[in-house]
Amino acid sequence: MPKISNKGQTIPASPIRKLTPFAEQAKLDGKKVYHLNIGQPDIETPEGMLNAVKGIDFKVWAYTASEGTLSYRKKLTEYYNKLNYGISPSDIIVTTGGSEAITIAMMTCLNPGDEVIIPEPFYANYNSFAVQSDVVVKPILSYIDNGFALPAIAEFEKLITDRTKAIIICNPNNPTGYLYSKEEMEALKALVLKYDLYLFSDEAYREFCYDGREFISPMHLQGIENNVIIMDTVSKRYSACGARLGCLITKNKEVLLAALKFAQARLSPGLVEQIAGEAAVETPDTYFETVNKEYTQRRDVLVNALNKMDGVYCPNPGGAFYVVAKLPIDNSDKFCQWMLESFSHNNSTVMMAPATGFYSTKGAGVNEVRMAYVLNSDDLQNAMTCLEEALQVYPGRVQ
Amino acid sequence: MPKISNKGQTIPASPIRKLTPFAEQAKLDGKKVYHLNIGQPDIETPEGMLNAVKGIDFKVWAYTASEGTLSYRKKLTEYYNKLNYGISPSDIIVTTGGSEAITIAMMTCLNPGDEVIIPEPFYANYNSFAVQSDVVVKPILSYIDNGFALPAIAEFEKLITDRTKAIIICNPNNPTGYLYSKEEMEALKALVLKYDLYLFSDEAYREFCYDGREFISPMHLQGIENNVIIMDTVSKRYSACGARLGCLITKNKEVLLAALKFAQARLSPGLVEQIAGEAAVETPDTYFETVNKEYTQRRDVLVNALNKMDGVYCPNPGGAFYVVAKLPIDNSDKFCQWMLESFSHNNSTVMMAPATGFYSTKGAGVNEVRMAYVLNSDDLQNAMTCLEEALQVYPGRVQ
Repeated sequence: MPKISNKGQTIPASPIRKLTPFAEQAKLDGKKVYHLNIGQPDIETPEGMLNAVKGIDFKVWAYTASEGTLSYRKKLTEYYNKLNYGISPSDIIVTTGGSEAITIAMMTCLNPGDEVIIPEPFYANYNSFAVQSDVVVKPILSYIDNGFALPAIAEFEKLITDRTKAIIICNPNNPTGYLYSKEEMEALKALVLKYDLYLFSDEAYREFCYDGREFISPMHLQGIENNVIIMDTVSKRYSACGARLGCLITKNKEVLLAALKFAQARLSPGLVEQIAGEAAVETPDTYFETVNKEYTQRRDVLVNALNKMDGVYCPNPGGAFYVVAKLPIDNSDKFCQWMLESFSHNNSTVMMAPATGFYSTKGAGVNEVRMAYVLNSDDLQNAMTCLEEALQVYPGRVQ
Repeated sequence: MPKISNKGQTIPASPIRKLTPFAEQAKLDGKKVYHLNIGQPDIETPEGMLNAVKGIDFKVWAYTASEGTLSYRKKLTEYYNKLNYGISPSDIIVTTGGSEAITIAMMTCLNPGDEVIIPEPFYANYNSFAVQSDVVVKPILSYIDNGFALPAIAEFEKLITDRTKAIIICNPNNPTGYLYSKEEMEALKALVLKYDLYLFSDEAYREFCYDGREFISPMHLQGIENNVIIMDTVSKRYSACGARLGCLITKNKEVLLAALKFAQARLSPGLVEQIAGEAAVETPDTYFETVNKEYTQRRDVLVNALNKMDGVYCPNPGGAFYVVAKLPIDNSDKFCQWMLESFSHNNSTVMMAPATGFYSTKGAGVNEVRMAYVLNSDDLQNAMTCLEEALQVYPGRVQ
């Protein structure tokens, strides 16, 4: 029997999914499971987008251009230029989800063995994309005590070697919900210019900023046009995760032309999705107002409930729909598994993602969990009651 | 400005697309262009598939399981088991087009620097997928004189080193249309067992076999279950190239589990496509009968017309919807470009793909072109008249 590759052996299993067998067992046991573990929103996809799917009128489900249809890229340009990105359709390559934008960006910009610095905790799949691209991830710790703010620039500089080619930020952040400030973005700008680095900006959660706080993209900063690559997706913006429709944006023409060759190799993004994506840009502002009001309320329910629990701390994040909370526990992997296997309150339990899966540094996140507030406020409140009860009886409780 | 990667520099541009600017110019000049250059069929997508898209009734366009929905994998199992593949839903990972199945297979099975042997001419994007996976392609020449039959096993053995991990076949073949015989498949089986290699079988054109000839998959051969990986797509089968829906099939559980981790990293294939894919399996046999009759007729028009031309030779392929023909020309790249830029007959011209793009061996295919018979018979006949006229006046004609 032929051997599988080293990549096949080392590519990490999804940290979000490793609890799934236990969750299935919990359901078999008749327990209700509150799923706070994954970023699949319960929010309805905009009607216009679904109607566009229902209204397709082609006879041949054909390839589109590898960079995406011109009409979708024009529509996207409208969307981004309302946000002052100052782009044209030729700065965009439409991708199969944000995932593909990330792998294409890595493969286009980094050689095998090159290093990318990522503030941690970070979106766990960056590790997988790095394995695929033979890229080395250099994590830089951010801390719950200051709400997971950008690490000090001096700390970044300590990590920079002659193999460092890029920094990845996710803003607002998954898993922490942290929203980078103007000052932090300016500091990153100076850093990438000083060391001639790429700045990859994953903006999947751009539309979810709360408390009137401003979203700053590297596209808003002058003088780093050739350094910046935006990686985006409609997944969260329009609650359309299963559309697998994203894009890569850059004004660096050399990067764009090379990225296009990767896009050409896989031929085309989906046709139906691009039709739906055009309709999505017409989504009325009221949709986002309603959704953001809903998320703000949920966040408040979650954060307030958590901070009232003995020994628990949860920063109040400015965006996305995640929080990372510190719990009085010995080990978040064990705790999350125990919640599914051995605990119930009112015949229900809570599924969370152990934060360890979002750190590369060994031992980091061992007393932290990520929760996605993708359930309605009543369910969230019930989930929090359940969690509070659990923490009181968990055998591995510390303090 | 940061440098792009070596991969970004070396990944080949699509050979099919490099003529596009000239084709656009031809259109600007008011010429009609017969597009025989790409494998985008003009055949209509089955109605049931399009109706399934129009009939979606979900409210949240959600992720599916990374390996694909169970209901789609069950339906696919029905399809494959009618063909005697003897598989179960757990042998399948649904992918974003056949392209993703190929990259996942390469990354799962081959280490950077490992070698894959591919009979050439071959589907040009294998080169791009190999660059992405840091895999080395070792081409092995097949020859137009015997219709591009499988090269002698002794020739394969000459190429095998301790880095050889896999053989890729595309059957029926793109670009040659060649359909491998039972004897050829048995010879490959003995070879992969002898050297403990993977056999990757790209079966995108499985449904297109002509003249009553039998399609043999490695899934029909006993004793190589752990060596075989099938890479498939609905693109050509249902004329649904823009659906980006494929799959990887293997009974090798170690490969499947590792491949699943690559699939998890990119989260999910498209939801709407999988719904459509389920409906596609219900496509009546009459659809394929009609389509295959149409393709057989077109192939006959094309092959007969070509072989009547002075100095032209075209084998009569058993499957797919491509032919590779030998023309009395100095250079197929120059000729195909000249056809678009400098030639017209009845104010029309023909766009073909220079076969050089399908060979890795330098100089091979220089007097060959690939044509896809994706136009109706009348247009094909007109295109052939046009080609015949062109060959008579082409300044680089040889013989």
